[in-house]
Amino acid sequence: MDRDAANAQALARLCASDPVLVDVRPAGQVVPGFAPTTVLTSGPPLPWDAYVGGQRNGVIGGALYEGLASDPVEAEEKLRDGRIRLAACHDHGCVGSLAGIYTASMPVLVVENRVGGNRGFCNLFEGPSPARLNYGVYNDDVHRSLVAIRDVIGPILGEAVRAAGGVPLRPIMRRALHMGDELHSRNTAATLLFGRELTPAIVDLAGRRPEPARRLLEYLGSDYVFLRLSMAASKATADAAHGVEGASLVTAMAFSCREFGIRVSGIGTEWFRAPLEKVEGKFFPGYTLDDVEFMGGESVINETVGLGGFAQAAAFALQDFQGGSADGMAAMNRAMYRITLGEHPEYKIPYLGFRGVPVGIDVHRVVETGILPVMDIGLAGRKGGQIGAGVLRAPLGCFTAALEAYTRHYNQS
Amino acid sequence: MDRDAANAQALARLCASDPVLVDVRPAGQVVPGFAPTTVLTSGPPLPWDAYVGGQRNGVIGGALYEGLASDPVEAEEKLRDGRIRLAACHDHGCVGSLAGIYTASMPVLVVENRVGGNRGFCNLFEGPSPARLNYGVYNDDVHRSLVAIRDVIGPILGEAVRAAGGVPLRPIMRRALHMGDELHSRNTAATLLFGRELTPAIVDLAGRRPEPARRLLEYLGSDYVFLRLSMAASKATADAAHGVEGASLVTAMAFSCREFGIRVSGIGTEWFRAPLEKVEGKFFPGYTLDDVEFMGGESVINETVGLGGFAQAAAFALQDFQGGSADGMAAMNRAMYRITLGEHPEYKIPYLGFRGVPVGIDVHRVVETGILPVMDIGLAGRKGGQIGAGVLRAPLGCFTAALEAYTRHYNQS
Repeated sequence: MDRDAANAQALARLCASDPVLVDVRPAGQVVPGFAPTTVLTSGPPLPWDAYVGGQRNGVIGGALYEGLASDPVEAEEKLRDGRIRLAACHDHGCVGSLAGIYTASMPVLVVENRVGGNRGFCNLFEGPSPARLNYGVYNDDVHRSLVAIRDVIGPILGEAVRAAGGVPLRPIMRRALHMGDELHSRNTAATLLFGRELTPAIVDLAGRRPEPARRLLEYLGSDYVFLRLSMAASKATADAAHGVEGASLVTAMAFSCREFGIRVSGIGTEWFRAPLEKVEGKFFPGYTLDDVEFMGGESVINETVGLGGFAQAAAFALQDFQGGSADGMAAMNRAMYRITLGEHPEYKIPYLGFRGVPVGIDVHRVVETGILPVMDIGLAGRKGGQIGAGVLRAPLGCFTAALEAYTRHYNQS
Repeated sequence: MDRDAANAQALARLCASDPVLVDVRPAGQVVPGFAPTTVLTSGPPLPWDAYVGGQRNGVIGGALYEGLASDPVEAEEKLRDGRIRLAACHDHGCVGSLAGIYTASMPVLVVENRVGGNRGFCNLFEGPSPARLNYGVYNDDVHRSLVAIRDVIGPILGEAVRAAGGVPLRPIMRRALHMGDELHSRNTAATLLFGRELTPAIVDLAGRRPEPARRLLEYLGSDYVFLRLSMAASKATADAAHGVEGASLVTAMAFSCREFGIRVSGIGTEWFRAPLEKVEGKFFPGYTLDDVEFMGGESVINETVGLGGFAQAAAFALQDFQGGSADGMAAMNRAMYRITLGEHPEYKIPYLGFRGVPVGIDVHRVVETGILPVMDIGLAGRKGGQIGAGVLRAPLGCFTAALEAYTRHYNQS
């Protein structure tokens, strides 16, 4: 077994990935293995009673929203005995933002990797309110937002995407990195570029269905819409690199309310888990670090493929949102080259002289250097809702555990 | 006379300017003093026979396009004897891109400073072909582009702008600086933001007039559309600061094929002139520095108000287009703070920790430090057309001449 050759192959697949948004459909129709009673949530899977706080509330909220239970007590019972089937997003080709709640009727972005043919899915941004189901809140307002996404935004967006013949995401992401996005906590330019690609189709639709078209345009006016697209694209990209015999390249990072986990290309679907690290952040007025609650998160799939914290030097405007300094961001970004296997041939950082983003986290390099992957994340509060944004590090324990498993599996290190 | 107080007043007007696109109309209808036989061109005015090369060709091309002469010989005669009235853009509230040719039927962007009530104008980007009238070329293709701008794009854009109730440009420019634009040689984000503002109005128009609406959307797909808007906004901004008794703040920079000129707030409308400096640039394949021809340029009004070369550290992606390095751009940008009177309260540079752009070039500071204003410009070739982009410096001679005039005028230095 030649580890370098295996990693080169995994890296090549990761860099060649060509994600295209091909459709928007209810999860129950397009996500493999999605039963009417399925609820997905973020992170390496846990027994139901291990979920706490906002993530637990989010799962219950999802069950109620989908009509799988008539009240929280019934939802809890059904989740415990399996009548409601709780599963991990990653096991269904999905990635969850924060708590990452998916139910069967929720529309998902269907992103296909034109090179590998594999698909990644992500559900839709709920809208600009800080109280959202994925931030652990379920109330009348959240319900109304979800219904609008299901009945208006999802269908008309799907229609526009199909009319446009699909939307290639790689060119948008490439350009957005030149326009101040790192494509995790900042997706402003990518959202605009995506909107421009769809506008001719929306103009056509507006002739027949002016009101949904107007609402879709309004929806595309939120700066965060593209995050879900970059997540689905990153999932399709990372999955393409998974399963290469002998590769020690990381193909998933994700966390639940309890712990962080990673998956490695050449060691099956096992999650290597460790407790969450402390976060450094900037908070909305009235909140502090003490108010932070982890309730899951899989948007760090973007860091897994070289975006977000691995492209911070493309997005100095993020200082305003998540704190830090330009020099600090550039230094963190440069450090990521020491734990990755290569540089992306198309995703480049102007400030670093158009150097490709560092891509392909290698378990060995993380353990050898002790440099932990940097991730740009949204922060949820103890009472639910978003309270700020910050930088999280993937815990070393995941990488040492993965390295041990790799060594056992291949009888080498 | 208190120079500091006068400069503070001029600077305050410059920083308070609130430019709004209110209309798009033919120059002959809205530009003050624009006769049917008027042709405007860039730079401090010269006698007709002093114009050479591409700028001369551009003026003749404009006269032919407008039907003011039936062939180049007749155009030359009429330009010499005044039957065609050649004048300077700046004397009519206009600013010219490169050769900067305006004729009466050309649509212009009408930008109003909501604080001062004064207006700035700029005609429209001709389209993505490197051969354009403002780059000294007039042929059948250029003619067709100008006719399309006059008959289709100008009218439908005007209709959309009026339907939208005008488009405030300050918020767009503020955001674009966080998205990799310096708003002179890079206007990618601003163009997208502007397009998004207009899209609802365009969707409405598409119901009644689908074909012009489709063509307007296509036109707004060019990354350079917003340059003309930033120029008109900068002209309205700089003019608001002009005419403050005692102020040594620069309110215009412009050049012709022959020379560079500046105007100063407190010393009337005189141009202080000097020969052009050498340019440093990056060239399209097949061209070199030897192919560069100066044919005028007033887009440097953007640098006059703190954009372009004064905001390079907001736009590292420009390296790819005009050469240089990220460190070099940051250093040039930082140097501009030494020759300016203040920092803009809203236009900020993320890389510099959200420091406001350096704004209000002071004649005294330029002469004292010897630091010359940096300008990001498009480069024209000897045979017409764009051949690259680069960095030009405003010549010291303009500033020493202005300082002498200031000292004479106010009996102090």
